[in-house]
Amino acid sequence: MVGGKWRFLEVAVALIMALQCLAEGFPEEDLVTKLPGQPEVAFRQYAGYVDIDVKAGRSLFYYFVEAEKEPHTKPLTLWLNGGPGCSSIGGGAFTELGPFYPTGNGLGLRRNPKSWNKASNLLFVDSPAGVGWSYSNTTSDYNTGDEKTAKDMLMFMLRWLEKFPQFKTRNLFLAGESYAGHYVPQLADVILEYNTRQSNRFKFNLKGIAIGNPLLKLDRDVPAIFEFFWSHGMISDELGATIKNQCDFEDYSFSRTHNISKPCETAMNEAGTIITQYINYYDILLDICYPSLVEQELRLKKMGTKMSNGVDVCMSYEEQIYLTLPEVQKALHANRTQLPYEWSICSSLVNYNYNDGSTNILPILKRIVKSKVPVWVFSGDEDSVIPLLGSRTLVKELASDLNFNTTVPYGAWFHKGQVGGWVIEYGNLLTFATVRGAAHMVPYAQPSRALHLFTSFVLGRRLPHKSPPALHD
Amino acid sequence: MVGGKWRFLEVAVALIMALQCLAEGFPEEDLVTKLPGQPEVAFRQYAGYVDIDVKAGRSLFYYFVEAEKEPHTKPLTLWLNGGPGCSSIGGGAFTELGPFYPTGNGLGLRRNPKSWNKASNLLFVDSPAGVGWSYSNTTSDYNTGDEKTAKDMLMFMLRWLEKFPQFKTRNLFLAGESYAGHYVPQLADVILEYNTRQSNRFKFNLKGIAIGNPLLKLDRDVPAIFEFFWSHGMISDELGATIKNQCDFEDYSFSRTHNISKPCETAMNEAGTIITQYINYYDILLDICYPSLVEQELRLKKMGTKMSNGVDVCMSYEEQIYLTLPEVQKALHANRTQLPYEWSICSSLVNYNYNDGSTNILPILKRIVKSKVPVWVFSGDEDSVIPLLGSRTLVKELASDLNFNTTVPYGAWFHKGQVGGWVIEYGNLLTFATVRGAAHMVPYAQPSRALHLFTSFVLGRRLPHKSPPALHD
Repeated sequence: MVGGKWRFLEVAVALIMALQCLAEGFPEEDLVTKLPGQPEVAFRQYAGYVDIDVKAGRSLFYYFVEAEKEPHTKPLTLWLNGGPGCSSIGGGAFTELGPFYPTGNGLGLRRNPKSWNKASNLLFVDSPAGVGWSYSNTTSDYNTGDEKTAKDMLMFMLRWLEKFPQFKTRNLFLAGESYAGHYVPQLADVILEYNTRQSNRFKFNLKGIAIGNPLLKLDRDVPAIFEFFWSHGMISDELGATIKNQCDFEDYSFSRTHNISKPCETAMNEAGTIITQYINYYDILLDICYPSLVEQELRLKKMGTKMSNGVDVCMSYEEQIYLTLPEVQKALHANRTQLPYEWSICSSLVNYNYNDGSTNILPILKRIVKSKVPVWVFSGDEDSVIPLLGSRTLVKELASDLNFNTTVPYGAWFHKGQVGGWVIEYGNLLTFATVRGAAHMVPYAQPSRALHLFTSFVLGRRLPHKSPPALHD
Repeated sequence: MVGGKWRFLEVAVALIMALQCLAEGFPEEDLVTKLPGQPEVAFRQYAGYVDIDVKAGRSLFYYFVEAEKEPHTKPLTLWLNGGPGCSSIGGGAFTELGPFYPTGNGLGLRRNPKSWNKASNLLFVDSPAGVGWSYSNTTSDYNTGDEKTAKDMLMFMLRWLEKFPQFKTRNLFLAGESYAGHYVPQLADVILEYNTRQSNRFKFNLKGIAIGNPLLKLDRDVPAIFEFFWSHGMISDELGATIKNQCDFEDYSFSRTHNISKPCETAMNEAGTIITQYINYYDILLDICYPSLVEQELRLKKMGTKMSNGVDVCMSYEEQIYLTLPEVQKALHANRTQLPYEWSICSSLVNYNYNDGSTNILPILKRIVKSKVPVWVFSGDEDSVIPLLGSRTLVKELASDLNFNTTVPYGAWFHKGQVGGWVIEYGNLLTFATVRGAAHMVPYAQPSRALHLFTSFVLGRRLPHKSPPALHD
């Protein structure tokens, strides 16, 4: 069907695009001409490595997607997934907010009609080294933690901007979810500190950070898990009461449990059985995917469930197939060192300092807000892993610590004439918003509401909080 | 397309069915030959009136649906909707668990593939008089309450069984939702009391009752509303805390509010703004229907939302159109007295004694359980009106009062290989089960899970609580 003429046209288009890149200072060698099985699009993609430490052989992999329309007028948003140890390319880019989702067989791509590149240029980074296609030739680099991760990401941003100099003066937003509740504020912190040291030279034009279902403070985020289980009917009334009465989460940490009483520990373990194979604890209303061969067969006979509430619950499974394909990795300029392990969404290689999970992020958020950088904390309300119940209290505490008044009282926000979630704003700089019916991975289960929230965030607009709402927004 | 030959065949079939009725003692005059716009089905339907008090002119309207297959081997289930004052025909029969749902334009019917008549013969009654098509010629009859309602329903059941004598010895189940948390146990209570008085004569063969999101005890069901709002992100952290700390719901009643402090009242009113036009508080994850002309137009342009999570959120609106059609009422033998008001899902005519809402239903449930009649309390977990948080505690209290042990510990139950909800059983007679992703009207938002639950109930089977689950169940 595709004749020589069209083939020539393709080559010509690629050539013109490459020349455009040169003119703009975009790195020609990182241009992704087309991903295997990808639908045609008008915007450009780049992917490749940024070397952080040449001596150690430590390099971070990135995937950059231009805004769908008028990319020159749109900001740059860096997206980071959490874990710690999970891939932002695998999570954010190809199953959440990027322009493509894997197809059902994992062998091609389909458009995500609610990609965040409608509102911004998007940059995804596998961070720290050891995650996704990021690597180090020095094994000890895989022993890492928050401080090294933030430092490497600052270095990454500086060097990435050397590759893409036109973004140096562009508005910059940092966003992410889950453990990126550590990454994003910590990166913003070192960026702001970098800016203060650069009296005359380049400064980052940081305009806001947004973190979804973020880990902020263990002593509130952990009890919130059990409050969520109880209030959503997942554990018994007795068990809920036992945890509430017997557990002291003050000073709780992942590594030390000495401050937890025996009855509390027993109760927490019992509740923990919820977090097993049979419930999607990142979205308790979504069904789970049965990826095994038997269930695949059942799915072919339409016996199993693949779609749930309009969401493909097997998307991670399909993605695992897609991103493992050698031709996909080649097209993305990924895996240039032929890593001795298969691609996986979360790394088993990185030995992350679990003590860092206990860090209280609120003081960092406070510094960011005090630098007049807006902070949005958003929360998919069906997530039991880092539920809204913790985040909401912590944002309130932060507002109180900042002596902020309530700028917009707690109430519903609207999208397409329906409640998109609930929102409160403090001091014109600090926003907490839930997304109704959304997962831990907010754009995954509620792409339309998530895009609305993100668009408002980068445009510096409040979420529409007045009813009756317009049906078009 | 339909020639004279087929028309003759239709008449012949109707004639044969009518003769069958005579043979079985089914009331020929109540046979519903076919509802306007109804798809062909193999089971029979009957509808009409049962006179409760001829002198007062008080009659209750019923709609009876045979089980889809082998109706002779299946039990009889009476379904009652709540309110008080809402129609069981409009609610249960045509938007929840009956064999038909209205079509999008409200001018015809479509099959509900998960109708509960797969498991049982179904009887729906508009109760008390003044609800739906039930009426009285004595206006003062519309001043009513729990006691009169139960008494009338006992009379109804006795007279209905005279019309359908073959069901006299059949297993009988009573089920309903919401305010039927009053109706169903109270009817069971008078039925059991009737049975004790009938030493040699007819006795009801009552085999179980099931109540969904039932009003059981105000002092627990009301605070549960605000706990639900808080834990689902619908009110602020502060407001949740204020209601928790300032409100004493002990001895709470609908009519008297003197035991509520001023700060509590203010907070409750503020929280009450949630219960307005913009959220479906019967299922907080479903969108709301915009039935106005403007929105209809928008829907035609596919701008508005009609389907939400796989559910037609405008079904009540479509039903209002359908049940108001004169040819529908004629086919159902409804509205025989030409009522001077339009059909509506909930009555504005009935002047129900609101003090009855304060009745503690637990002692009644205790009597029922002590009579060895199984009691199931089920709860759609997305309902904020009578949330699972109250029902779960109340069932636990009842079990404790009965000195019942836990027969099946609290845990997930499974349907089609996925979590259908969570369940606990006490003393082999008392079951509490949630239905995941279900509304106040459980079969409306989760028809498949609801049918599974109902089937287990009438078969006297436990919900499957072991994983890994079979995908076929």
